[in-house]
Amino acid sequence: MQDSLKPFFSPDGVAIIGASSKTNKLSYGILRNLTLYGYKGAIYPVNPGSEEILGKKCYPDIRSVPDPVDLAVIVLPANLVLEAVINCAKRGIKAITLISGGFKELGTEGEELEKQLISIIRKNDMRMVGPNCVGTMSLHNGLNTTFISGIPDIGGIGFLSQSGAVLGGIVDLVKGKGVGFAHFSSLGNEADVTETDMIDYLGNDPQTTVIAAYVEQIQDGTSFIKTAKKVSETKPIVLLKAGKTSAGARAVSSHTGSLAGLHSAYQAAFIQSGVIEVQSVNDLFDVSQAFALQHLPKGRRVVILTNSGGPAALASDSLATNGLIMADLSNETTKELRNYLNKSAQVNNPVDMLGGAEALDFENAMKVVIDDPNVDIIVAILVPQSLVNPVEVAHSIYKIANLTEKTVIACFMGDQLVAEPRRVLHANHVPMFVYPESVGNVLGAMLRYANWKSSYEEIKPITENINYEMTRRIFTKYRAEMSLGEALTRPILESYGISVIKGEIAKSAQEAAIVAQKIGFPVALKIISKDILHKSDVGGIRLNIFDTEQVLDGFQIMMADIHNLMPHTEIDGVIVEKMAPKGQEVIVGMRRDPGFGPVIMFGLGGIYVELFKDVAFRVAPISKNDAMDIVFSTKAGTLLRGFRGAKESDIESVVDILMRLSQLSCDFPEISEIEINPLLVLPKGEGSIALDGRVILDSSFL
Amino acid sequence: MQDSLKPFFSPDGVAIIGASSKTNKLSYGILRNLTLYGYKGAIYPVNPGSEEILGKKCYPDIRSVPDPVDLAVIVLPANLVLEAVINCAKRGIKAITLISGGFKELGTEGEELEKQLISIIRKNDMRMVGPNCVGTMSLHNGLNTTFISGIPDIGGIGFLSQSGAVLGGIVDLVKGKGVGFAHFSSLGNEADVTETDMIDYLGNDPQTTVIAAYVEQIQDGTSFIKTAKKVSETKPIVLLKAGKTSAGARAVSSHTGSLAGLHSAYQAAFIQSGVIEVQSVNDLFDVSQAFALQHLPKGRRVVILTNSGGPAALASDSLATNGLIMADLSNETTKELRNYLNKSAQVNNPVDMLGGAEALDFENAMKVVIDDPNVDIIVAILVPQSLVNPVEVAHSIYKIANLTEKTVIACFMGDQLVAEPRRVLHANHVPMFVYPESVGNVLGAMLRYANWKSSYEEIKPITENINYEMTRRIFTKYRAEMSLGEALTRPILESYGISVIKGEIAKSAQEAAIVAQKIGFPVALKIISKDILHKSDVGGIRLNIFDTEQVLDGFQIMMADIHNLMPHTEIDGVIVEKMAPKGQEVIVGMRRDPGFGPVIMFGLGGIYVELFKDVAFRVAPISKNDAMDIVFSTKAGTLLRGFRGAKESDIESVVDILMRLSQLSCDFPEISEIEINPLLVLPKGEGSIALDGRVILDSSFL
Repeated sequence: MQDSLKPFFSPDGVAIIGASSKTNKLSYGILRNLTLYGYKGAIYPVNPGSEEILGKKCYPDIRSVPDPVDLAVIVLPANLVLEAVINCAKRGIKAITLISGGFKELGTEGEELEKQLISIIRKNDMRMVGPNCVGTMSLHNGLNTTFISGIPDIGGIGFLSQSGAVLGGIVDLVKGKGVGFAHFSSLGNEADVTETDMIDYLGNDPQTTVIAAYVEQIQDGTSFIKTAKKVSETKPIVLLKAGKTSAGARAVSSHTGSLAGLHSAYQAAFIQSGVIEVQSVNDLFDVSQAFALQHLPKGRRVVILTNSGGPAALASDSLATNGLIMADLSNETTKELRNYLNKSAQVNNPVDMLGGAEALDFENAMKVVIDDPNVDIIVAILVPQSLVNPVEVAHSIYKIANLTEKTVIACFMGDQLVAEPRRVLHANHVPMFVYPESVGNVLGAMLRYANWKSSYEEIKPITENINYEMTRRIFTKYRAEMSLGEALTRPILESYGISVIKGEIAKSAQEAAIVAQKIGFPVALKIISKDILHKSDVGGIRLNIFDTEQVLDGFQIMMADIHNLMPHTEIDGVIVEKMAPKGQEVIVGMRRDPGFGPVIMFGLGGIYVELFKDVAFRVAPISKNDAMDIVFSTKAGTLLRGFRGAKESDIESVVDILMRLSQLSCDFPEISEIEINPLLVLPKGEGSIALDGRVILDSSFL
Repeated sequence: MQDSLKPFFSPDGVAIIGASSKTNKLSYGILRNLTLYGYKGAIYPVNPGSEEILGKKCYPDIRSVPDPVDLAVIVLPANLVLEAVINCAKRGIKAITLISGGFKELGTEGEELEKQLISIIRKNDMRMVGPNCVGTMSLHNGLNTTFISGIPDIGGIGFLSQSGAVLGGIVDLVKGKGVGFAHFSSLGNEADVTETDMIDYLGNDPQTTVIAAYVEQIQDGTSFIKTAKKVSETKPIVLLKAGKTSAGARAVSSHTGSLAGLHSAYQAAFIQSGVIEVQSVNDLFDVSQAFALQHLPKGRRVVILTNSGGPAALASDSLATNGLIMADLSNETTKELRNYLNKSAQVNNPVDMLGGAEALDFENAMKVVIDDPNVDIIVAILVPQSLVNPVEVAHSIYKIANLTEKTVIACFMGDQLVAEPRRVLHANHVPMFVYPESVGNVLGAMLRYANWKSSYEEIKPITENINYEMTRRIFTKYRAEMSLGEALTRPILESYGISVIKGEIAKSAQEAAIVAQKIGFPVALKIISKDILHKSDVGGIRLNIFDTEQVLDGFQIMMADIHNLMPHTEIDGVIVEKMAPKGQEVIVGMRRDPGFGPVIMFGLGGIYVELFKDVAFRVAPISKNDAMDIVFSTKAGTLLRGFRGAKESDIESVVDILMRLSQLSCDFPEISEIEINPLLVLPKGEGSIALDGRVILDSSFL
């Protein structure tokens, strides 16, 4: 709960520290906006040089401002800010919106100043939005502490943005289009209030029905996921992430690392926590508006009613690429449509009522399709025609839409001709878009959220068949190592209930022969040495050994080869391993992301994981659904299900291993990376076996 | 050349047959539009029931209309159209725009009527646009034979659409935004004039500098490719295709067929012929406008100048996903930028001049970057801020843009606030978009076209090492077969210079042994029987045979096995084949598309071709560049180049085989499908060998 953020949207009184009477100053713009949109609370300009600004009495300093005042908006040069905040603290003001720039964004000096600021804020139990931001708006009570010209319409969208400059453009893009907002907030440097705090606050705010966010960076991924999950249970979070392709990927030493670029962690976090990621500014508001106005879809079967075949075809394409399908209309429906519509109309899906279709045609067709049990979603498309009144069509659409709990959206192609119909539709809970391509993007987003909600489950820690103590002992003993090879990774995996190919360490040829006889032929020999990274490159792997003699020979040759190639290598022995049975090779692993913590990875084994980037990620801890999601969102999952007549593999065991890996990663923060490569997945019912693995430790835990 | 289409855009006089004086009739709307936008030619309403409409003298029939008149727009009920067209023919009118519906789109009866219509049109050397269309517009001379309200601005875009209803929406979307059109045409049922005719005409039209097209279907793919290629050499064609995901893929019997869904042929045709396919209505006009106004990019290095970091980040994402890269600014550039700009500005790329950046900052920064040799493209981004005049910024941008031959585009985020700056920029040759995501889409499209132009080459038939006659004889002999197996496909491929794994047919065990000794061990045996589709399923393949005895044994066992499983199978012998060396397996093939003809296919071998759909297509005949394009646009191509330290494979030989397959497909239209699967690609310099192949014949050639 973030009750402390309430004054940023519903303050009892607002002081503008640094208010100017010069009309070309930002602070003047803020004061004007505060007076312009119906805000009922007290407004106090603070400026020692003025008596009055915009008809408001001006105060020389914040201490002289009378009650009530619980928000101070500061618009001063950076070097005057600290004193102003201290005075606010003394005056008992708990909420600061710091518009001024000149802090962390300008380098070391500014960063120092920002730190001092934060320490005052924290010491005095205050909250601060900014610095380097453009303020907040609350559309329901007319609060506007920005200097942006114009405001959007009133509605249910709570918007937060890590870019301030972008807000002016966004307001201009959405205003007058019936896209309704509850709150608007610019977060600036997030010195105190972060995107997560704001999501938490809006999650509990009754005026906000959907949260829209523009995000560039999330500092505390763990708390973001926790908050976003909680909020997503009751309202959707629609998010546009910038910087997806930025070359921010760290150089790393293993497959897992090299594939888990930064955005993969963000993406995983969004998917897991129900956050609906969109790909464009346009989609951000189209999707948010749809959530704000319409019912969630109860299925993915769509019917299109249209007066023009072209846009219906484009919309169908976009539906298909977004996971929706065209509904198979019932015979009754097509028969009834035939009765109602022009005899030339196409009564299959898309239902094309032709260019002359009027409001009554839309109304009749909608009436019929909302009752078809094969239909979950209705899309009404209109291209304005000279003899049809689009406003009347809009009335027909919402009239029927309001009779059903099925999802109804509209696409009216155009600009000026569709402005009034859009206002009518939006005012009556039917979202409308101008491009047919938006239809699929919007419904796809709604469907993803509906699916997340219905499949959401609590994550329970795994305890069965886990020996925490044993693993703890290994880490304690080997904490000085950078990297644990197969021999040490083996008992770690086994302690966490992950099967490893049968094998034991042997220090001599004779020991190797004894082990081989014990575990049964055929076996493989693998060198153990922390100096050797790629065993096969130095002759450190021998496969398909069928008898004792071959074991003895193989051991000698391996030692000789390695001694020749790397004379000073320290060798700890060999692992004698059972040769693996047939199965499907996959790779599972974990890399710890600086922001989100342990990221679990699954993908196709061999060179294909890199060639096709066929991998999926989730942030640990993961639920069983998350684990299944990872598997099935890859082509590796398709293979495991039994592709082209192949037998189904033991997917259940892969899911179990992913969850155990997640548990292991959460239990031991000193693990920086784990990789099981390959994990051999056997036929259904027979489990999976780790054939090789390694662990990389975080040296900062030393 | 399509001079016969000139009257649809520049008629000397227009008759409206079926003109009505009732204001709620479409024909009234057309007449009004004709009089409204400055068309200077004569306008003749034709209607026996009126004396005069809209101040124009009305004629009882077309024969009484005086000269000059060379276009008749017909708006009559379908049953009166035939007679009207006959009268037009008698009157010597060569161009008909048939607005009326009621033809092919309504089924058999309408189709019959349309056929009669066409026969009259053809017999009299007339041309017809429609039926079932909304007419044409020519913005430069004010001709408007549509009933759409409003017209777009004047410019260089020639637009054609297979959907008429969509035009009203499009006009409303683009009008008043400085997106300039030369011509607008709706094609309806394309009974006579097709999209290809129109592209041909606009390709030669001096007012048209870029062609934009909305297309649902192309009937004659071969002539489309030929025309589009020719036109693309001088002006870009930007195309939006609807129905990409439609379940129109035919059931087919081989890998090639099952993957070459309909849209893959379209896509291939577009790529080869320089047609720039876009994915949305918005992109269609953004991209067309950019082509109309700006220079083609000379490279892919982009610099962004912005007053807001957020949109610059979003634009960078979209640039990266569209194949562009951020320019590495020279030291001189950053030094100069530092001199000119605010000391807090970020002078690396993106150059962030911060929220306060004014027109002069944009002007100075642009001046600096246009001279940087590391920069090919300049993107200026502005989010309107309260203290900055966006129109002044627009003036600064085009002023500098007009001094350089580098590509310059602008993104001004907003709606009402950016309307005037957009008009200013568009009027001065700088395209402007409102969403940062459009930046990458537009520049990516421009780059693709520039690359196509610079790599375009004439296709020359291949003759070297091709024995047409030998192949002809095989087809003549086996024309009654549906499908030619490996044994018959072998000599066909060899005749076209494609190496096949060494092997010969043997009818008995003894013959097989002799062949094996001749070609050298190890060998494989493969059954020959037209009854057996999957050889390995019935024991019809034996590999790794090392000596004569194994050949004799293997032959006997194979015959026995097959006899047991399929007692009545007719067996033609075995192929004794050299065992293949090591190499990379790929698949190459051809499937004949009903619209586009032979489609050449290349992809990864094995199950991966289906799992990852890692295939690429081009329509034959293909050039060497086309063949290289196919290879390098797949992951299979990445593998062949030598992935993860592997040796490079003989890509040259794959390119050669693709071109030979193209030649074969063009030479023998009776081939319905060919598949070489696998084609074994050996290390660089060692060639490629077909290991198995088959040909399916088109039974209609019997």
